[in-house]
Amino acid sequence: MKYSLLGEALSNIPFEERTEENGLPFWRSVRNPIVARNPIKGVARIYNSAVVPFGAGFAGVFRGDTLNGWPLLFVGFSKDGYSFDIREQPIRMEYENGAPYEMEYGYDPRAVKIGDTYYILWCDGLGGQPTIGLAETKDFKKFVFKGHPVLPYSRNGVMFPRKINGEYVLLTRPSDQGHTPYGDIYLSYSKDLEYWGKHRLVMKPQSSWERLKIGAGAVPIETSEGWLLLYHGVTQTCSGYVYSMGGALLDLDDPSRVLHRSKNYLLTPEKEYECVGFVPNVVFPCAALSDSATGRLALYYGCADTVFGMAFSTTDEILDYILGH
Amino acid sequence: MKYSLLGEALSNIPFEERTEENGLPFWRSVRNPIVARNPIKGVARIYNSAVVPFGAGFAGVFRGDTLNGWPLLFVGFSKDGYSFDIREQPIRMEYENGAPYEMEYGYDPRAVKIGDTYYILWCDGLGGQPTIGLAETKDFKKFVFKGHPVLPYSRNGVMFPRKINGEYVLLTRPSDQGHTPYGDIYLSYSKDLEYWGKHRLVMKPQSSWERLKIGAGAVPIETSEGWLLLYHGVTQTCSGYVYSMGGALLDLDDPSRVLHRSKNYLLTPEKEYECVGFVPNVVFPCAALSDSATGRLALYYGCADTVFGMAFSTTDEILDYILGH
Amino acid sequence: MKYSLLGEALSNIPFEERTEENGLPFWRSVRNPIVARNPIKGVARIYNSAVVPFGAGFAGVFRGDTLNGWPLLFVGFSKDGYSFDIREQPIRMEYENGAPYEMEYGYDPRAVKIGDTYYILWCDGLGGQPTIGLAETKDFKKFVFKGHPVLPYSRNGVMFPRKINGEYVLLTRPSDQGHTPYGDIYLSYSKDLEYWGKHRLVMKPQSSWERLKIGAGAVPIETSEGWLLLYHGVTQTCSGYVYSMGGALLDLDDPSRVLHRSKNYLLTPEKEYECVGFVPNVVFPCAALSDSATGRLALYYGCADTVFGMAFSTTDEILDYILGH
Amino acid sequence: MKYSLLGEALSNIPFEERTEENGLPFWRSVRNPIVARNPIKGVARIYNSAVVPFGAGFAGVFRGDTLNGWPLLFVGFSKDGYSFDIREQPIRMEYENGAPYEMEYGYDPRAVKIGDTYYILWCDGLGGQPTIGLAETKDFKKFVFKGHPVLPYSRNGVMFPRKINGEYVLLTRPSDQGHTPYGDIYLSYSKDLEYWGKHRLVMKPQSSWERLKIGAGAVPIETSEGWLLLYHGVTQTCSGYVYSMGGALLDLDDPSRVLHRSKNYLLTPEKEYECVGFVPNVVFPCAALSDSATGRLALYYGCADTVFGMAFSTTDEILDYILGH
Amino acid sequence: MKYSLLGEALSNIPFEERTEENGLPFWRSVRNPIVARNPIKGVARIYNSAVVPFGAGFAGVFRGDTLNGWPLLFVGFSKDGYSFDIREQPIRMEYENGAPYEMEYGYDPRAVKIGDTYYILWCDGLGGQPTIGLAETKDFKKFVFKGHPVLPYSRNGVMFPRKINGEYVLLTRPSDQGHTPYGDIYLSYSKDLEYWGKHRLVMKPQSSWERLKIGAGAVPIETSEGWLLLYHGVTQTCSGYVYSMGGALLDLDDPSRVLHRSKNYLLTPEKEYECVGFVPNVVFPCAALSDSATGRLALYYGCADTVFGMAFSTTDEILDYILGH
Amino acid sequence: MKYSLLGEALSNIPFEERTEENGLPFWRSVRNPIVARNPIKGVARIYNSAVVPFGAGFAGVFRGDTLNGWPLLFVGFSKDGYSFDIREQPIRMEYENGAPYEMEYGYDPRAVKIGDTYYILWCDGLGGQPTIGLAETKDFKKFVFKGHPVLPYSRNGVMFPRKINGEYVLLTRPSDQGHTPYGDIYLSYSKDLEYWGKHRLVMKPQSSWERLKIGAGAVPIETSEGWLLLYHGVTQTCSGYVYSMGGALLDLDDPSRVLHRSKNYLLTPEKEYECVGFVPNVVFPCAALSDSATGRLALYYGCADTVFGMAFSTTDEILDYILGH
Repeated sequence: MKYSLLGEALSNIPFEERTEENGLPFWRSVRNPIVARNPIKGVARIYNSAVVPFGAGFAGVFRGDTLNGWPLLFVGFSKDGYSFDIREQPIRMEYENGAPYEMEYGYDPRAVKIGDTYYILWCDGLGGQPTIGLAETKDFKKFVFKGHPVLPYSRNGVMFPRKINGEYVLLTRPSDQGHTPYGDIYLSYSKDLEYWGKHRLVMKPQSSWERLKIGAGAVPIETSEGWLLLYHGVTQTCSGYVYSMGGALLDLDDPSRVLHRSKNYLLTPEKEYECVGFVPNVVFPCAALSDSATGRLALYYGCADTVFGMAFSTTDEILDYILGH
Repeated sequence: MKYSLLGEALSNIPFEERTEENGLPFWRSVRNPIVARNPIKGVARIYNSAVVPFGAGFAGVFRGDTLNGWPLLFVGFSKDGYSFDIREQPIRMEYENGAPYEMEYGYDPRAVKIGDTYYILWCDGLGGQPTIGLAETKDFKKFVFKGHPVLPYSRNGVMFPRKINGEYVLLTRPSDQGHTPYGDIYLSYSKDLEYWGKHRLVMKPQSSWERLKIGAGAVPIETSEGWLLLYHGVTQTCSGYVYSMGGALLDLDDPSRVLHRSKNYLLTPEKEYECVGFVPNVVFPCAALSDSATGRLALYYGCADTVFGMAFSTTDEILDYILGH
Repeated sequence: MKYSLLGEALSNIPFEERTEENGLPFWRSVRNPIVARNPIKGVARIYNSAVVPFGAGFAGVFRGDTLNGWPLLFVGFSKDGYSFDIREQPIRMEYENGAPYEMEYGYDPRAVKIGDTYYILWCDGLGGQPTIGLAETKDFKKFVFKGHPVLPYSRNGVMFPRKINGEYVLLTRPSDQGHTPYGDIYLSYSKDLEYWGKHRLVMKPQSSWERLKIGAGAVPIETSEGWLLLYHGVTQTCSGYVYSMGGALLDLDDPSRVLHRSKNYLLTPEKEYECVGFVPNVVFPCAALSDSATGRLALYYGCADTVFGMAFSTTDEILDYILGH
Repeated sequence: MKYSLLGEALSNIPFEERTEENGLPFWRSVRNPIVARNPIKGVARIYNSAVVPFGAGFAGVFRGDTLNGWPLLFVGFSKDGYSFDIREQPIRMEYENGAPYEMEYGYDPRAVKIGDTYYILWCDGLGGQPTIGLAETKDFKKFVFKGHPVLPYSRNGVMFPRKINGEYVLLTRPSDQGHTPYGDIYLSYSKDLEYWGKHRLVMKPQSSWERLKIGAGAVPIETSEGWLLLYHGVTQTCSGYVYSMGGALLDLDDPSRVLHRSKNYLLTPEKEYECVGFVPNVVFPCAALSDSATGRLALYYGCADTVFGMAFSTTDEILDYILGH
Repeated sequence: MKYSLLGEALSNIPFEERTEENGLPFWRSVRNPIVARNPIKGVARIYNSAVVPFGAGFAGVFRGDTLNGWPLLFVGFSKDGYSFDIREQPIRMEYENGAPYEMEYGYDPRAVKIGDTYYILWCDGLGGQPTIGLAETKDFKKFVFKGHPVLPYSRNGVMFPRKINGEYVLLTRPSDQGHTPYGDIYLSYSKDLEYWGKHRLVMKPQSSWERLKIGAGAVPIETSEGWLLLYHGVTQTCSGYVYSMGGALLDLDDPSRVLHRSKNYLLTPEKEYECVGFVPNVVFPCAALSDSATGRLALYYGCADTVFGMAFSTTDEILDYILGH
Repeated sequence: MKYSLLGEALSNIPFEERTEENGLPFWRSVRNPIVARNPIKGVARIYNSAVVPFGAGFAGVFRGDTLNGWPLLFVGFSKDGYSFDIREQPIRMEYENGAPYEMEYGYDPRAVKIGDTYYILWCDGLGGQPTIGLAETKDFKKFVFKGHPVLPYSRNGVMFPRKINGEYVLLTRPSDQGHTPYGDIYLSYSKDLEYWGKHRLVMKPQSSWERLKIGAGAVPIETSEGWLLLYHGVTQTCSGYVYSMGGALLDLDDPSRVLHRSKNYLLTPEKEYECVGFVPNVVFPCAALSDSATGRLALYYGCADTVFGMAFSTTDEILDYILGH
């Protein structure tokens, strides 16, 4: 490997060899979509969702839009990373004192393991308005609600997989009440996951395919060249938004510094299941598995706000692409 | 049957057994779309349209968008309820005195039989602005224009299939001049079909999938549990509107009272012919046939403002679903 | 008098000789505003309001915006038509059966006497949405709510002062949920004030100063040349709406026919109390007194949604102006 | 005094007896505006600004819009609280290490004294986007920049004048990039002024005059009945926004709890200098002086985004009003 | 004089000494407004208009908005430059062949003398859409229509007072169909006033007070330091647009080059007649007289789209200001 | 042939017999799309592009949207008119003096041969704003930039294939900065390709399918009945724009005169590759080849802003259709 992945090895990472010559560092799974419409009872669409290694397999926290049009979080488990046993009962969280936390709604979850704890972030309602919710779990059964790191209006909260300089680091995308027609990625620090400060701008839209807004996608991946941030970028045509995926490398010690950033997108809607659905023309990266032994990377991404898909790459392909474009 | 349908028997109702496990009370016809693009000379798309039993078969009043982009009404006849002989000449109406009524435009028709007369309602232009037009026919050849029950701006006018407490009852959806981003269903009474009053609110959007607006769909179906109203509900994504179908039960004697209402939709765009077309992501219910002997129900609905489709269900499935969700 | 006023004589009509050379048929009262800010306890602004002859003096139904920003109706009495004793308690209406009618809100009232009964129309909430409310009173103490003649969304309901061809006639301006950026005047008939039909378009915006929308103002005044309709017309600048007053003559027997219409406005915001206030640049005609003996006319109009004013003219000046422009 | 003010005595508080019978708890200074247009060299308008007792007199942090249309902060001093010596040089801040902090822009400052330190909050640019800036000073000469308590987009940051349960408490109004057409007041805690958490919704718009948005105004005033929060509320007419002032009482120990809140506004634009200017129809409370010995209160507020004014009241009048409406 | 004015002497230039200490290079006439509301029969408001020396006095081409809200052009003459005899009959133009040119509408005229001919430019309708119209006159009686130099959508066409490098030079502001929320100043060349090319960008908005759009105002004035361009710049508050006046110096030989530009505005709405009216908060420069012998300059500008005003300065004051800010 | 084509014979014109019965004069190629996604290295989509006969085959100027979302122009060559060898290097233009012209962006090119020179028009940036760029080439290797015929904001510039009355003739569609929600086709003349004047309105939207805006498509084709103009027309649904193709015949000597115009569209999105993609529901005509010997016509058009397609017809079919509808 030309560049090294600094995380753990993941020998059972789902992976397929490239079957698609698209000039991009990612290629799609031939098994896409891996979660189709009406996946479980009462749920219409599962798409923008988080997957992490868990035990001998994988666990996922899924955005499921119910038949009454309401987004909730669901938990699921998989042996191979493709096929998930998703529970019909939405996730029920509790406060530290055991009292139930009544979630107004929950969507676009991310999950990250720090130490032996999994932290879940998602778009939650605070006073009815969208902001980031934070919860922790060790077993994906009991989820303890830890509050809202930031005030409304915010979406796309993503935490780094380890403390940096002794502090937790969170990416967010300040938003508005609706289909936010703007958006930059910011970063905040915390010593205790409860109080956050030292807010910094990380990056703004740069290329045309992301000119409307950008937002963090998968948990940043530590590489020898910096934190690899896979994010979504949005442009607006006369018929709606188009979501593509971008990539950047952030400084390992000061992740508000962008070292490199690809002018080109790394993935864009092309397949019928990405271009047709509840929201046409969306690829929305939410999670990535990586294997430091091989440099392999498996990306999970939402497709057209309707189904869930996977794509693959390697550290070398991605970093060469970002450093080259 | 668990619940009874109070209308007439319709032994020749088109019907297919369920082939689709979607968790919803309706399943689609395997013959969809039953009217495809460019169906007759000069007409680009036939979609949101009305079908009623007529003679030994069925008659339809169809919305046809011409090759110059103008919506007009067309009449058609069918033996089996699937295959329609649609006349190329648009419907020409006349006043009671025989003078021609020059329709500016006509779209989204509904048809209901009361006694031995068929009443047609559609979106008509009054002073150039959209409101409900009303006409009557007995033979689907001669259509007598009866005026506009309500002032602009209105759409989705649907009449009940019998008088209630001695008066005709009309559902409408007050609208605006354009792609109306709001809408509730109201109800009005008339003794003579000419003067209307006693306006009541029936219902407003409730669930997320219908949060933008709702509008009456098929003629209400009389059941032992109330009037079954199949209606459309609309939500708005960052790339446009999505039209689904909802269901409610209205009080038999006071149909402005909602007895039950499904939080879940009963049908939502999933098939390629519902998700792709002139207006992506539309299922638009306009008519339903029902057979009181078997509880069978055949729904006609517009797909993507482009083609015309059918779906099936039974009273028992629908009412269990509405009462259960 | 060149033209005759067909209504009753009103010897105590408030009137002032012309003091303003503005090229328009109306001149303002030197006592303007006749109702200033904070006119009664708990009320911030009284403006778009109705005044009619009553007993030996005058009665008014006033739009009062309370200190919590809510529009309600208030009753008041005057001996001279200038100075009103307005009651602090908002009007409370009742149904015919004596049960109280809980008004959600009430604004922009008009009042008309037909026979020995006064009919009040105003913008009322039906299912929370704006439409016309109708009530009757004989003494301005007891107000009986008669329902909503038309469905939402409607504003600016004005009734003619007598039946025409045996039917009541109502002008309305179909509207939307907000600050309606369009609007035409329509007309409807009723035999019983409960059921309304035979809807007709009366007129659309024509000149530049009314290009956004128009709406009926004062109760039409019967003249030898037709019904004199004083109405408001609105244009939109880069800094908001500007409300002026127009005039038209409608056919006495078929008031949906416009016989003459002034291309020029009859009054436009010029004075500080018309140009500065809660909504700058508004003159909003709501009522007119007329004296058939002299042809004198006293106009009541709201100013800048803040205060209440008067202007004067004569039938001859107005009709010459309308027939001449 | 019926109710007690819990803060310090302020024997030199500027004060005038009531000269205005407006039904409201506040009356205006007869010397308004106390800062007129073009107040100092290079500055067009001084308006939404903070004033605090300082030494034997008063100090102010002023929003000044320069002749190139750019909002900056200026410092000024006064002996009587009316007449301010405002320095022509904008405030220049520095980091704790002495390096200059280059402020992109600064507007709508508030100032609060906690212990012996004055904290200044204002709307500052972070990555070019509006959020709250925080600085401290002891002498109004040296201002040390302490960072941004919250991420963009935020405005109207106001701190409580003492720690509550050992933590600093901050009110903010999450906003968007532009003329934010919505807005609720939220509250956050901090142990160190650097990291903030425990975000809570305090209140949303309630009455019609504040239906668009609300935002904290003056530093909360401690009374026997709770924290008195004077805030601004905004409604939208067809010609723009109207800013009034509201009042609420928050729980002394848990200030996210609203104990009482006036449905009526406490001040609304009425005077020519409030209704005419760069932004017509604005009263914008920013600061209040209070004297616990007499219950007197002097309010400073911006007028029409153009000039600076004062109004007066007493604890008793205000609390009776809030408790009564 | 520190800087020289290169044009002609104009001994009878209207002029007043400074009476206003506003920190700006211009001071207003104490006789403002020089044209008030309802100035001539049938005309409501005269404001954005052109004035040039003519014979022993001055001629003007005035924008008059008629009582039907329609903008037309009127001619007027003055001996002193203050008091104008404006003709009631709108200007009627003709083609070169003598056939009448039917102007759809005409507004915001400018006038420039080149050689012995006066050229009038204004916003004219081409196919109903706004663009620049061009006409010539020698006597302000006969106006010959010369066509439209540029396609719709354009406004604020201003010609230089002499050929540059043998070609006519025109400034325009490309626009849209409505209240254009953007706008830069461009420049085009012509050899014959009929065909135009060599289009260049001159300048875009730069400061906050002009951030929405800019447009050329008075005919450029030739000075030793370059062409002095007085232009309008617009910003947008939550209640509408605010028009101020800016100043720039363009290269004498290549006027698409901006040599200097004032960051500060040179005039902004402050007076009641500039802040209140049909469009509040507008100062709109349209014409300037200058006297090379004294360096005096008399500016004509529209106020609030309602009245017409004057302001004064000298070359030295203006150029020092532009070079200094 | 019923009607004659006046251009040159093109014996190698690509052509297919009709395979589609759609009631329209055009039928699609069975080989569509002829250019698919990711056609060349670094380019995501090639669509709205120009093709002309060149040498023994064909040359094309292609709009290619790069992987960073930026539109550029590319050159390509083909022997059969179907299969193009498109160069990976974007077109680099130069000024007449050989200096490179740095194109900000380039899209929607058209190409026309006049004499022995090919003229390329496209949407270019002037001061960053969209307008028409003009270049000439003889060999499709060296492209000389000839400036911008018109000011911003303009798109869809199309030149006639010969001088008319001794002058070059250009069609444009004045536009705005964004997704222009209006648009008419205008025409301008030039003697030298540098200075343009005599601007005329050609046509406005007329039918419902083009009600939002229209713009010229292919280079006009000279026929015995007039210049055949194939253009695009756009309507707006609640989910975005729909682009169809219209046809008109312009007077041979005065091409601003529309002799005939089809009320019906000539092509509309129906195929999956026209309805699904970056911008759903777009057919965008850009070029046409014609063979005067046979009357055959091959149309090139962009599909869904994603791929490139062809359709075929004959002069007789098209003209009969236009003259008949």
